[in-house]
Amino acid sequence: MSVDTEWSERFSAYGKRAVASEIRELLKLLDRPNLISFAGGIPDPTLFPRTLIAEAHARILDRAGSGNVALQYSVSEGYWALREWLAAYMGRKGVVCTPENILITNGSQQALYLAARLFLNPGDGVLTERPAYLGALQAFAANEPEFLPLSALADPSMAKAKLVYVMPDFANPTGETMTLADRNAVLDGADRHNVIVIEDGAYSELRYEGAPIASLLALDIARKGSIEASRVVHCGTFSKTVIPGLRIGWLVAPAAVITKTVLLKQANDLHTSTLTQMALAGVAAHMPQSHIAMLCETYGARLQAMLKALAAHMPAGVTWTRPAGGMFVWLTLPESIDAALLAIDAGIAFVPGGSFFTGARKPNTARLSFSLCDPVQIAEGVGRLGRLIAEARR
Amino acid sequence: MSVDTEWSERFSAYGKRAVASEIRELLKLLDRPNLISFAGGIPDPTLFPRTLIAEAHARILDRAGSGNVALQYSVSEGYWALREWLAAYMGRKGVVCTPENILITNGSQQALYLAARLFLNPGDGVLTERPAYLGALQAFAANEPEFLPLSALADPSMAKAKLVYVMPDFANPTGETMTLADRNAVLDGADRHNVIVIEDGAYSELRYEGAPIASLLALDIARKGSIEASRVVHCGTFSKTVIPGLRIGWLVAPAAVITKTVLLKQANDLHTSTLTQMALAGVAAHMPQSHIAMLCETYGARLQAMLKALAAHMPAGVTWTRPAGGMFVWLTLPESIDAALLAIDAGIAFVPGGSFFTGARKPNTARLSFSLCDPVQIAEGVGRLGRLIAEARR
Repeated sequence: MSVDTEWSERFSAYGKRAVASEIRELLKLLDRPNLISFAGGIPDPTLFPRTLIAEAHARILDRAGSGNVALQYSVSEGYWALREWLAAYMGRKGVVCTPENILITNGSQQALYLAARLFLNPGDGVLTERPAYLGALQAFAANEPEFLPLSALADPSMAKAKLVYVMPDFANPTGETMTLADRNAVLDGADRHNVIVIEDGAYSELRYEGAPIASLLALDIARKGSIEASRVVHCGTFSKTVIPGLRIGWLVAPAAVITKTVLLKQANDLHTSTLTQMALAGVAAHMPQSHIAMLCETYGARLQAMLKALAAHMPAGVTWTRPAGGMFVWLTLPESIDAALLAIDAGIAFVPGGSFFTGARKPNTARLSFSLCDPVQIAEGVGRLGRLIAEARR
Repeated sequence: MSVDTEWSERFSAYGKRAVASEIRELLKLLDRPNLISFAGGIPDPTLFPRTLIAEAHARILDRAGSGNVALQYSVSEGYWALREWLAAYMGRKGVVCTPENILITNGSQQALYLAARLFLNPGDGVLTERPAYLGALQAFAANEPEFLPLSALADPSMAKAKLVYVMPDFANPTGETMTLADRNAVLDGADRHNVIVIEDGAYSELRYEGAPIASLLALDIARKGSIEASRVVHCGTFSKTVIPGLRIGWLVAPAAVITKTVLLKQANDLHTSTLTQMALAGVAAHMPQSHIAMLCETYGARLQAMLKALAAHMPAGVTWTRPAGGMFVWLTLPESIDAALLAIDAGIAFVPGGSFFTGARKPNTARLSFSLCDPVQIAEGVGRLGRLIAEARR
């Protein structure tokens, strides 16, 4: 089209962050025999509560009353019973709130996108960990901000910050967890600089050891006395604990923020599927506690297998994180090795770490996901990776 | 929140177009006994193919193979089999294209939103009919354009146009259809001014009389020889012919536009629900032709009932459109009457026309939807409205 050049400049902001083709290439690799993949940060589908989900859909669609409501247009805020369930669920985690503080979104990705679109203007400063979740960077990049390191929050002279993004529990891609002191320091800095904090709780439920630490939103509510006075916008999702494919997430924020985000959501896609929201409300209400315990036991064993294999197979000069939950271990190779140049035709896939960075990239890093492989495959895959790295050092 | 003032200015662009609260208020009215509502532009839920949809979900979820694919993450472009079906469907309407020309979206609202976000920068000119579909105006307004009348396309000196929006068949809110000559004139003007044309085909299948007229995309493909050379971006939806609540729509465009919009979609919400796409692909493939014929017969009879009742009950000085399809009749009252001041506690609801306008509003207009009422209710409701208007003239 002849107008192509007119959009290309703005568009490059997305192009730089385009992980789509990368992930798709990696998914294609999965069809190769003998490939062991630590690439996708995706749940193991054999652990999905498929029968519960099938029953919830059948229960709704079998009757005209509920079925016709489920298939009709609905309000942009989301299905009330699901918002009620989520308000109670967040309340059990110290986030005292009402359904009016909850907006249902298409996965937490849309919560991140809408919050970014609401708050960011071109040139605004966005502070993130380096490395950080690529999907959040994409959502922010759409608004042409300036990316700054999270550490800038400690600088009293920092001028242009508008928004801080954190994933405090078992972060994608590093697996690391922020200490309580770190969380409080972020809140102190956010108050000092008067910025919004977007908290991404995607992996919070997947803790395999130690005690949970309060979310930044819960801590800020305790400080300020009410969610309405908080500056934290919390994004949650059913993608890691129930299923990802149905795309149900949520945003928790002061009611004034929800009211404005609802209008954005309406302009964006009117509302999230009514049927899916009703089904998830049913599944959430009937889900046995043992489901998440089973996920934690299974993934926890895979994490331990990966840590054990890394200790056994990694050559000297390689270091890695030791997460307490989530789906990822973050590997740092000797500086001379570019992780993107490894793993071609070696029967092992992972995501090279470079693309998770704003600012200077560290090409000698890699994200390993342990969520899709059993312990035997993990041992074998880490062994292959160790040999690759050892060869690359020569 | 203390940063409120920083976002309020941009946000006012949405606020001005906020139909959310308006529609919600109208929906509340539906609970009132004896109320007859011509307000919502929504399909009649008793006509939904609920059993087909229930069976499609059960078929997918009952087996681990398809069920686990349906519940897992998927690619941002959409489910391949659904894109294939849509390419063939569009092909039968003269839009020669491949699945690579199709992006699956959350209803056509998201197709409009993503296209607008891709093409528009603040201050760009957007040409629309006056009045025009409010959801499109919301999607465009998010990018702070300048709204211009469609007639500006005929002005050779017009400088700032970037995008034209048209709903050529049975438009929301007027019910009017563009002639073939009008469609060609828009394409001529778009070529002359080098602008994008966004075509909204939401109601195209709901034709109750006369022969279909080719879409602007089909006409442009015939002119240019290939979709890849077209400047038309077409937005379609299952919301009017199957069900709205599942939120499945699509965008048809040159592959180069799809490639870029996919990255925006990914930043926005990763992808549309895999299960819902698989279910819709099954429903679309198995839907009897008689379903749309039944919808057209039912809604067509309601339209005739409304036109007949208007002729019987409207006082002198009131005029209305005579649509050949869709869900709406557009009423123009004597200039002294503000439609927003009618209909309070009179047992009749509709949408006052003022909010559908960019530029100067015409408060003496109203949108009447006939999709939710049977012919007896329509006659009674139009009678009430006629008496209200007659009283207001005194």
